[in-house]
Amino acid sequence: SLDDGRFPVKRIVGDQVLVQADILADGHDRVAAAVLWRVAGQRQWRQVAMRHLGNDRWCGEFPLERLGRHEFTVEAWRDDFATARMDLEKRLAAGNLSRVDLDEVLHLVRATADASGNDALATLADALEATDDPQARSALLLAPDTANAMARHDRRPFLARCTTVYPVEAERLAAGFSSWYELFPRSQAMPNADGVQPHGTFHDVIARLPAIRDMGFDVLYMPPIHPIGRSNRKGRNNSVTAEPGEPGSPYAIGAVEGGHDAVHPELGTLDDFRQLVSAAASHGLELALDFAIQCSPDHPWLRDHPDWFAWRADGSIRYAENPPKKYEDIVNVDFYASGSIPGLWTALRDVVAFWVNEGVRLFRVDNPHTKPFPFWEWMIGDIRATHPDVVFLSEAFTRPKLMYRLAKVGYSQSYTYFTWRNRKAELIEYMTELADGAPSEFFRPHFFVNTPDINPVFLHDSGRAGHLVRAALATTLSGLWGMYSGFELCEATPLKAGKEDYLDSEKYQLRAWDWDRPGNIVAEITRLNLLRRLNPALQTHLGVRFYNAANDNVLYFGKRRGSHDDIVLVAINLDPFNVQETDFELPLWEFGLPDHGALQVEDLWRGTRTTWQGKQQRVRLDPAELPFAIWRVGPGRTENGQAPEAAR
Amino acid sequence: SLDDGRFPVKRIVGDQVLVQADILADGHDRVAAAVLWRVAGQRQWRQVAMRHLGNDRWCGEFPLERLGRHEFTVEAWRDDFATARMDLEKRLAAGNLSRVDLDEVLHLVRATADASGNDALATLADALEATDDPQARSALLLAPDTANAMARHDRRPFLARCTTVYPVEAERLAAGFSSWYELFPRSQAMPNADGVQPHGTFHDVIARLPAIRDMGFDVLYMPPIHPIGRSNRKGRNNSVTAEPGEPGSPYAIGAVEGGHDAVHPELGTLDDFRQLVSAAASHGLELALDFAIQCSPDHPWLRDHPDWFAWRADGSIRYAENPPKKYEDIVNVDFYASGSIPGLWTALRDVVAFWVNEGVRLFRVDNPHTKPFPFWEWMIGDIRATHPDVVFLSEAFTRPKLMYRLAKVGYSQSYTYFTWRNRKAELIEYMTELADGAPSEFFRPHFFVNTPDINPVFLHDSGRAGHLVRAALATTLSGLWGMYSGFELCEATPLKAGKEDYLDSEKYQLRAWDWDRPGNIVAEITRLNLLRRLNPALQTHLGVRFYNAANDNVLYFGKRRGSHDDIVLVAINLDPFNVQETDFELPLWEFGLPDHGALQVEDLWRGTRTTWQGKQQRVRLDPAELPFAIWRVGPGRTENGQAPEAAR
Repeated sequence: SLDDGRFPVKRIVGDQVLVQADILADGHDRVAAAVLWRVAGQRQWRQVAMRHLGNDRWCGEFPLERLGRHEFTVEAWRDDFATARMDLEKRLAAGNLSRVDLDEVLHLVRATADASGNDALATLADALEATDDPQARSALLLAPDTANAMARHDRRPFLARCTTVYPVEAERLAAGFSSWYELFPRSQAMPNADGVQPHGTFHDVIARLPAIRDMGFDVLYMPPIHPIGRSNRKGRNNSVTAEPGEPGSPYAIGAVEGGHDAVHPELGTLDDFRQLVSAAASHGLELALDFAIQCSPDHPWLRDHPDWFAWRADGSIRYAENPPKKYEDIVNVDFYASGSIPGLWTALRDVVAFWVNEGVRLFRVDNPHTKPFPFWEWMIGDIRATHPDVVFLSEAFTRPKLMYRLAKVGYSQSYTYFTWRNRKAELIEYMTELADGAPSEFFRPHFFVNTPDINPVFLHDSGRAGHLVRAALATTLSGLWGMYSGFELCEATPLKAGKEDYLDSEKYQLRAWDWDRPGNIVAEITRLNLLRRLNPALQTHLGVRFYNAANDNVLYFGKRRGSHDDIVLVAINLDPFNVQETDFELPLWEFGLPDHGALQVEDLWRGTRTTWQGKQQRVRLDPAELPFAIWRVGPGRTENGQAPEAAR
Repeated sequence: SLDDGRFPVKRIVGDQVLVQADILADGHDRVAAAVLWRVAGQRQWRQVAMRHLGNDRWCGEFPLERLGRHEFTVEAWRDDFATARMDLEKRLAAGNLSRVDLDEVLHLVRATADASGNDALATLADALEATDDPQARSALLLAPDTANAMARHDRRPFLARCTTVYPVEAERLAAGFSSWYELFPRSQAMPNADGVQPHGTFHDVIARLPAIRDMGFDVLYMPPIHPIGRSNRKGRNNSVTAEPGEPGSPYAIGAVEGGHDAVHPELGTLDDFRQLVSAAASHGLELALDFAIQCSPDHPWLRDHPDWFAWRADGSIRYAENPPKKYEDIVNVDFYASGSIPGLWTALRDVVAFWVNEGVRLFRVDNPHTKPFPFWEWMIGDIRATHPDVVFLSEAFTRPKLMYRLAKVGYSQSYTYFTWRNRKAELIEYMTELADGAPSEFFRPHFFVNTPDINPVFLHDSGRAGHLVRAALATTLSGLWGMYSGFELCEATPLKAGKEDYLDSEKYQLRAWDWDRPGNIVAEITRLNLLRRLNPALQTHLGVRFYNAANDNVLYFGKRRGSHDDIVLVAINLDPFNVQETDFELPLWEFGLPDHGALQVEDLWRGTRTTWQGKQQRVRLDPAELPFAIWRVGPGRTENGQAPEAAR
């Protein structure tokens, strides 16, 4: 449960939801309990019995059979028959069972039979009344069938139901596991015969789809595809004035050609977009769009809906800022301006609904933390009420509690601090917070290795090895990872040394890319994506455990889906400049094996198999070759299906 | 807060209540917040501003000025002036302050002045409008007086109040700090000339009061003082039949002479009881009574209110059991029998109210875990609504969550597992759960070293040293401690080896005591109680920290009330049979001192003073002399009142 039921916990459809509760009654009477659950909107609860784990903690599980909001609560009652049965057994053992003791249990059976109208119970009560023999009566009362029948028809005295109904959000698999590839469609054209780079179109993107799919990605994500404003248009490298012919930033949304529900004419028509959606689907790729709630000064809304904006005392409007960044080509709507409720709110919802209607189910949302939480909670809830397969990704890089709050109010996925976590200790600390802390119930981290805004300093001079390190971290630590095109070419030239802006950023200009650039890591990314598909343990950030590796430059961890599965072990050299060797511990104890035990090992990179004996193992990771290793380890199976250690 | 406001946290009147909250707003605007608080039942909230601690965590404090239930909640709003001021400072620093920037802040001041009708703000707005000079305007807007006035009259846009109101229970000091002495009044008579022990009376107890008070106790607690049933009366050492003339167990309440609101005739009359109350008060002692909800088969209620009991099919009634203990002389009421609601519930409440009316404010409640939680919540709330100085002590020895639940529903104090915690690791673990875990907000542990039911095995053969060890533990670890008479005489003879029953227990017979028995520890108990009175750090279990002592037989800890106070250090040899020596760490770091620093030390037992230099210290604890040491340590004060280290 999350914040006492105020927000849903998040799960994937097909998951079992494990519910635990402390359940107490005064005295020595036994209690029984059930989890009540239903799809939100249904009247009827379904129920499943809970079992006692000890120390008054109970648990039960229910399945998520379909997408969308579910809810559960817990019910408990005094279990009179269990109490009577326990008492009977004690008195039998002590040899002081009296006739009245038996009579009382018989009355309980009769009353339950009468109340339920159950024939079997009535027959049982008849049989009990027909005999005076204490042994025969005890035997009948202690029979397992009797206990089952009495439990099934229990009148549930002192029934108490938890006053809170706890929500659970069941989302589709891709909400927790997918691999994203980001590109600027306008840079996807081939240079023409004169070496001039034309403005790319959706059809150029269609031509790139096979390559993207071959790398193993599931999602193609594009920055805004809408008409770009001309007022205060940015020039290359974020200069405040554009030269004639410069394309401007796609985040300056809106021009005379239209706003958030229009397509930039140079990219194509809405029909071209539909062809792209359909072509992507045929390659097994899904499109993700950018939902950026901001306007160029030329956006039609400024003319048609001036009451959605905050005008200054001098009649001007303030341009957007996200300190220290300035966006002179952008103005923001005001969610609480005089005309904004409901006008602006529903218009924004309708923008999303428009693209949902065009088949889009993934939205990366720009800077959501500068917009009201209540707006997101309402809008996301409204969209998902009819389309529970829609997924929203929060692009908020801000204070942790704001990021978590956005996840609570409805975002399925969230950008993270991953790009700024490079050292072993900080990676372990951050992963532990995400996978084992409170956020594990509602915050799904999306590990982007780079974005058009973040050219991580770590990559500037670490070359191919550095890119492999970061790719390995993202693909193995998180179920969700993303890459902005150019990463696979190890493109990391900064605008200025030590700064995170790309030189000649595609945000402000067209770029031409050589997709076969020497030293690229396309093959490695392809293999990493394949290993993710083949190993469910790599399809979530949950279930990670950091094990001992003596070398502080080597991050070493295991991931496991179920407690009986094999473990995927990963060792990554975080130092892109030097060979690192380390002793590390083979987690034999996770399989109940002693320190001298053995595990079967598959090297998932090379496809080789071997056996490792003993807890202490050693690995050498050469960044010039491959700065990481990935193994799958397990006890193997004997012919009769048992683990070999257990079979001995 | 406790269980999302379902139950109150517990505090002592005079405490400051520290409230923390995570407070978030979207975007970059500043927020402000206040704690709202009031005595329960008042309409008007009082408020106190909260301050930002960092990472979106805010805090504020309010005082508990009177006894009883209080409540608080949190309010927050967008702080437009703070945001504008921050913006102004940034623009001034960057040199890009424009006229419209200043105009907008001026409009905010004017609007606030108009809305509040505040003259000073109106004058300020006039002054701002009267000048065009940006510097003069900025200076006025940035003046601290302006910030204060704007904060005071803030219109609080986007005001949001936490939907939960959180209760706090303010109790009197004795709810958290007192020392209890338990005795059986019927054993307090002096043998007569023939050496025969007569039945003691309240007047015999009055004669004992000076000795009890001299030992430093605050509370005199007596087992039930009501008429004792004759049916199935227990004989000495819990035999199932009593010989003629045997007094029976005082827990078999009720006879022809009366029930829970009557006094046992052999103890005296109600008027004698009143004399005892008054005599105790004149000695600075308070009486605690035993509230034991059970009846002897002769209790008037069985005749007058048969519908308060669960009769069996054969017309009999089951005697009480608390497995494995059997109470053949007792039957229990049934809280849910046909006539019990409201009859029994109000009758029980009226029993308590009767004794409250006789001046009793402390009730030790027998076995509350076998009665309904809702009964306790209602009854305790009802009594405390008119008498918030009444304190209930829960005598529940059962599973931890039941014991905690009783504290949540209203018990001020609780018996604990202390009597069964003897080793260093288990003492540290238990104290950490009580003082630093969730229970610290609602569960006040009462450390009894023995009770009529618990003659701890640890004491059976450990003699004087063992009794000193346990007395030192109870008096220094907990604000509440208790002793059943005989402990000071080191009486620990068990009924059977290894069992916790006393031989010749006063529960079933009169005893004659030699209060000057050789080897008694009256002097040590007197001094321990005195040190508790003199050192506020010893008046609560909260604030305990366990420090390093190398020897596993030595428990070593510090207690401190406020972060600037001296620390009381305690070292206790848990081994009553052997001298134990140990190195231990002087907690210089708690005073910000380096490892080679020095502290002034007062040996609280011997009254000597010295200085300790350096973190490593050593102590020798001889159980034949004194198995513990108690010091008060601090940096001392120089002539100008500074700590000497800081003064250097």
